[in-house]
Amino acid sequence: MPNRFGQLFSITTWGESHGGGVGVVVDGCPPRLPLTVEEIQVELDRRRPGQSDIVTPRKEADSVEILSGLFEGRTTGTPIGMLVRNTDQRPGAYDEMREKFRPSHADFTYQAKFGHRDHQGGGRSSARETIGRVAAGAIAKKILALGDPAQPVEIRAFVSRVHDIEMPVFAAFPSLAEVEATAVRCPDAATAAKMIERIKAVRSDGDSVGGVIECRVRGVPAGLGEPVFDRLEADFAKAMLSLPATKGFEIGSGFSGTLLKGSEHNDLFGLRDGRARPLTNRAGGVLGGISTGEEIVFRVAFKPTATILQPQKTVDVQGRETELIGRGRHDPCVLPRAVPIVEAMAALVLVDHWMRQQAQCRSFKF
Amino acid sequence: MPNRFGQLFSITTWGESHGGGVGVVVDGCPPRLPLTVEEIQVELDRRRPGQSDIVTPRKEADSVEILSGLFEGRTTGTPIGMLVRNTDQRPGAYDEMREKFRPSHADFTYQAKFGHRDHQGGGRSSARETIGRVAAGAIAKKILALGDPAQPVEIRAFVSRVHDIEMPVFAAFPSLAEVEATAVRCPDAATAAKMIERIKAVRSDGDSVGGVIECRVRGVPAGLGEPVFDRLEADFAKAMLSLPATKGFEIGSGFSGTLLKGSEHNDLFGLRDGRARPLTNRAGGVLGGISTGEEIVFRVAFKPTATILQPQKTVDVQGRETELIGRGRHDPCVLPRAVPIVEAMAALVLVDHWMRQQAQCRSFKF
Amino acid sequence: MPNRFGQLFSITTWGESHGGGVGVVVDGCPPRLPLTVEEIQVELDRRRPGQSDIVTPRKEADSVEILSGLFEGRTTGTPIGMLVRNTDQRPGAYDEMREKFRPSHADFTYQAKFGHRDHQGGGRSSARETIGRVAAGAIAKKILALGDPAQPVEIRAFVSRVHDIEMPVFAAFPSLAEVEATAVRCPDAATAAKMIERIKAVRSDGDSVGGVIECRVRGVPAGLGEPVFDRLEADFAKAMLSLPATKGFEIGSGFSGTLLKGSEHNDLFGLRDGRARPLTNRAGGVLGGISTGEEIVFRVAFKPTATILQPQKTVDVQGRETELIGRGRHDPCVLPRAVPIVEAMAALVLVDHWMRQQAQCRSFKF
Amino acid sequence: MPNRFGQLFSITTWGESHGGGVGVVVDGCPPRLPLTVEEIQVELDRRRPGQSDIVTPRKEADSVEILSGLFEGRTTGTPIGMLVRNTDQRPGAYDEMREKFRPSHADFTYQAKFGHRDHQGGGRSSARETIGRVAAGAIAKKILALGDPAQPVEIRAFVSRVHDIEMPVFAAFPSLAEVEATAVRCPDAATAAKMIERIKAVRSDGDSVGGVIECRVRGVPAGLGEPVFDRLEADFAKAMLSLPATKGFEIGSGFSGTLLKGSEHNDLFGLRDGRARPLTNRAGGVLGGISTGEEIVFRVAFKPTATILQPQKTVDVQGRETELIGRGRHDPCVLPRAVPIVEAMAALVLVDHWMRQQAQCRSFKF
Repeated sequence: MPNRFGQLFSITTWGESHGGGVGVVVDGCPPRLPLTVEEIQVELDRRRPGQSDIVTPRKEADSVEILSGLFEGRTTGTPIGMLVRNTDQRPGAYDEMREKFRPSHADFTYQAKFGHRDHQGGGRSSARETIGRVAAGAIAKKILALGDPAQPVEIRAFVSRVHDIEMPVFAAFPSLAEVEATAVRCPDAATAAKMIERIKAVRSDGDSVGGVIECRVRGVPAGLGEPVFDRLEADFAKAMLSLPATKGFEIGSGFSGTLLKGSEHNDLFGLRDGRARPLTNRAGGVLGGISTGEEIVFRVAFKPTATILQPQKTVDVQGRETELIGRGRHDPCVLPRAVPIVEAMAALVLVDHWMRQQAQCRSFKF
Repeated sequence: MPNRFGQLFSITTWGESHGGGVGVVVDGCPPRLPLTVEEIQVELDRRRPGQSDIVTPRKEADSVEILSGLFEGRTTGTPIGMLVRNTDQRPGAYDEMREKFRPSHADFTYQAKFGHRDHQGGGRSSARETIGRVAAGAIAKKILALGDPAQPVEIRAFVSRVHDIEMPVFAAFPSLAEVEATAVRCPDAATAAKMIERIKAVRSDGDSVGGVIECRVRGVPAGLGEPVFDRLEADFAKAMLSLPATKGFEIGSGFSGTLLKGSEHNDLFGLRDGRARPLTNRAGGVLGGISTGEEIVFRVAFKPTATILQPQKTVDVQGRETELIGRGRHDPCVLPRAVPIVEAMAALVLVDHWMRQQAQCRSFKF
Repeated sequence: MPNRFGQLFSITTWGESHGGGVGVVVDGCPPRLPLTVEEIQVELDRRRPGQSDIVTPRKEADSVEILSGLFEGRTTGTPIGMLVRNTDQRPGAYDEMREKFRPSHADFTYQAKFGHRDHQGGGRSSARETIGRVAAGAIAKKILALGDPAQPVEIRAFVSRVHDIEMPVFAAFPSLAEVEATAVRCPDAATAAKMIERIKAVRSDGDSVGGVIECRVRGVPAGLGEPVFDRLEADFAKAMLSLPATKGFEIGSGFSGTLLKGSEHNDLFGLRDGRARPLTNRAGGVLGGISTGEEIVFRVAFKPTATILQPQKTVDVQGRETELIGRGRHDPCVLPRAVPIVEAMAALVLVDHWMRQQAQCRSFKF
Repeated sequence: MPNRFGQLFSITTWGESHGGGVGVVVDGCPPRLPLTVEEIQVELDRRRPGQSDIVTPRKEADSVEILSGLFEGRTTGTPIGMLVRNTDQRPGAYDEMREKFRPSHADFTYQAKFGHRDHQGGGRSSARETIGRVAAGAIAKKILALGDPAQPVEIRAFVSRVHDIEMPVFAAFPSLAEVEATAVRCPDAATAAKMIERIKAVRSDGDSVGGVIECRVRGVPAGLGEPVFDRLEADFAKAMLSLPATKGFEIGSGFSGTLLKGSEHNDLFGLRDGRARPLTNRAGGVLGGISTGEEIVFRVAFKPTATILQPQKTVDVQGRETELIGRGRHDPCVLPRAVPIVEAMAALVLVDHWMRQQAQCRSFKF
């Protein structure tokens, strides 16, 4: 099941940078959900190349086709197959990669694992694989928005740091408009401007930068997640570290929380709005693997883009030392386009756990 | 499958702090592995309460019984059932927790999820659950040590930071003796002394501290891991965030790697020892989800122990505000005892991926 | 996951004929189910050796211990570990099997698969493995009985044929008392008497017989099961063929239904008791993999017991021809003791699908 | 995972009779397998409508497109996405089914499960779903043929009975040419002629017939399968009962084996061709869930086609009694086209278990 994610609401992605296209099968989707192809396209457009002047200028419309699982505007409960054709393919552009391993790319490990590899555009390691995740995530988001009419679940990711440019703490839950206001998807306008400037600067040097994406979720009911292996935070961590270029994950107080003493770190319980709740949220919305009902807050570290337009030392498939000069149309910083991908993965985790909670704890009347 | 971990080499743990005991079923274990109960007990003893003067003084021998799957000193390939009886139970000691939610504990969320809970000693959220993981991990470690006679896989975790006391970078692969030399399991003796001092200090205040465990693995062949969802780092992240009290995970350069540019961060390939290899290891031993053959290096953040011996504000099951004073025999810092648990989880991930790699890429001769 | 069954309500069994015991971990059990150890013991007693004069006279009390997952008489939602110690072990009695493969037993294939095997009492292939299934099935049955207060689900298996002695068609749903009235568990008293006579006759010849168990389930709501791979009948088939000694499965009209034309076989729909329902039930309670709400009816073929007390030609582990004389205390006919096992497996399938249906189709309000 | 089959070599099918098409994602395929689209098309052509004068005259070319997972003529080890567009759609032809439940079809149960359904051509319950299985099965067959150069695994299914016309016992392993020689796919020419006659006769009455398909596999090494739940026969049973219109499964002696005594049924071991082997094969190639190395033999019962061209009593979605006259272009007997589907499912089971055996028992050198 290497290409499947989720237990009850599960997705299977397929496809490479080059070839017929990329896609996803969404299995276990609840029936009768109103759904249009446009709702999915909106999310894909947030992930699309060429959407702004700080991302790769590749021209791919990434138009999605829903092949199955929909009938008269509603999901049938059967698998939803979706397909995005590859269009802007330039096979010749990758001839050098047939022989040479790009530094900090997966070429080397794919060769070790599979004995050969599709060297064009990274093959399966291409970020195009995430198209399927975003398409499926659009469905998951809609389920979360509509699932409990009394309390929609909202997911908002944003770029909180690029290189060493960090936004100030944003206490409020950022609106989608605030995030989408700038090409870099940082809701703090002043910081966003500096981030964009930095990205343009490294791009002009043929270099790249990484950073941190923060994700917040509100409206999640208490009780989602499992006590042991499938803790909500464990499944978020897996989801995020399954994304290309990620190197770290933390929830709530995270690594910096380890600098506090227990007496400083504990979230005391009290009454707020007439309900028993934790009065602070260093936990980041989970305790013992299970949601508390408070805002879920986690952060993901993305390394600088591995492809840079500078000569780099490397080896070839015959094991000889050589040099490679990155070419092509790459993102100098992957974070702006990764924002909808982080949201998609978060949504997949949450719908899956919602259904699991329903199955175990609300199927029977004892 | 909330209590199962692993796809091919999988474990299912069961048991609570109070009740008959805790245990594990190891499923999919290769046959003919030489195995003794003593080899498992050794690892459990590293996790055991009362092993030093900086951990909880609870007296539990944690003696393991192997109930199945072994015949004349070798595994049969059928499930290995293991049981550790609970002995030092003090049910009365938890009467207050029946009504009151302990801050930053799972009491509140278990109640929300399941509608009731075993309040004694945390029930299923007790760290006793990890006994099963460590017992299973002992088997996984042995498989990794013996599996390829030409190259044993070794896993070494250690405490690299307690509160704000951080050990200097340790370039060499620490020996087991170095780690076990002090009660705190930090291989740098000078740092270890300071850590122990700090732990004793917070304990005398009825307080607690957290910190960071680093884990290194050497001898892993290139090629383990999957390209997309089941990336090796994603499965490590899930494994680690599934441990009690963890708040973060990073691999290789991790969060600090995001402060580098691509030209600084990339690991160039070259020849070392006559082999094509990455010349640096900011990747932490994985590229594109698959092992490179270099040392695997990751770090895990543990929050300060939630139980502190100070009065704390909280609520009760009727939703009334109240106060709770922590009592009992708790670890002022969980990290020393968490070291073997981190190693166990790392071993489980690696054996599972080793078997997956064998299944997909070495079953047939094409 | 070779020793796990079920997706949401899942069991993992472990243990061999000889060694510490046999057991099961029930994972995913709904919380708050009232449960006592006696309720489980009742089902185990129906499976127990020595319960009548037509089954093996081995003396095993098969007393079950619940090790976890229960608190103050109700399930907690965490895994339920159960253990039955092995007591009546006679290791010496199996010395001959160390070298010789028993005809139509698993000795030969275990050796081929695992490279060695526990030859005592069949090791893992012993019918003692089914103790875990029956213990877990007792819980599943209780869930089905209580789950929907308006309509309990009842499962009733019985022996419908022994060798060539077949009971007449039993139109009514047999009561538990009717089934348990005789040692052979055939609800037709006259047929039961003949069956018992036949079993005693073959036993006195040192021979054995097989037969057919029929299982009926009433009260299952329409809508359980999946359209494609996890059809309800496919999961029943898998469950039944996973039992020792089974050679066939059929649902509804089964093999004999293939002798009818479509015009004779189709179940027409009409109104009964004011509800739209199939007017006949050749389908056996499922259409397109999903329950219709009618009675589920399936049958399972069991081969004659492989162990017979007659000399048989065989080979030894060195590949030499030899002879083996069955000894020991075996069932001349496994069917009477298999009845509770068939019921247990049916219950496990149904609870799992009930929870799956709840998760996919009743989690959200669209 | 309702639409996934297999653990390591797994498939996920999607698609309905009407809509964009049907397809499959093959996950876990070994890398470097030589593969062409023509090899897959050959199997699809055996399943295709309109291939002879005894099957449905629908005109669908069922041309398959491989969208991913192939590079320069070899599999990459990444998922293989395949798509067959729907072409001969007649949406208007199904207007009556929007309101009326077809007897012995899945309309009624889909409505009960999902709350609505795609009524056109049966939606997901259409036999078109099996296209994905056959396409994936073509890959599995090739793996089995090439996997062990010393011993190819061959799978041969054929129609052994139509209605009450049964072929004589066929001792030899039928050749593909013998099976494909007639439109009915019965390798006994004389019986085939009678079967064809019968099928034409019932078709002219607007009626339908069912029957039995036998499947044999040779070349399977001893040792595949699991001791308990995932017995080889259990997984074959599940695979077969997951096919539309199936009502029964038996392996080896099956139901008729229950009429023998143990002394008659047991397969004695002896030396044949210098090897220790069972001298007879009532077991059907499996013992204790694991392959013996002998021919695997099983049979599957298919009910008569539910769609008949005669008026039938039924109900509508409002719960009113009504009548329905079958129309359209249906198979009067599904068995000839089901032969390649049975082979495909058998191949999927075997490749999966081959990889599982490799993973558990041949990954490490103990």
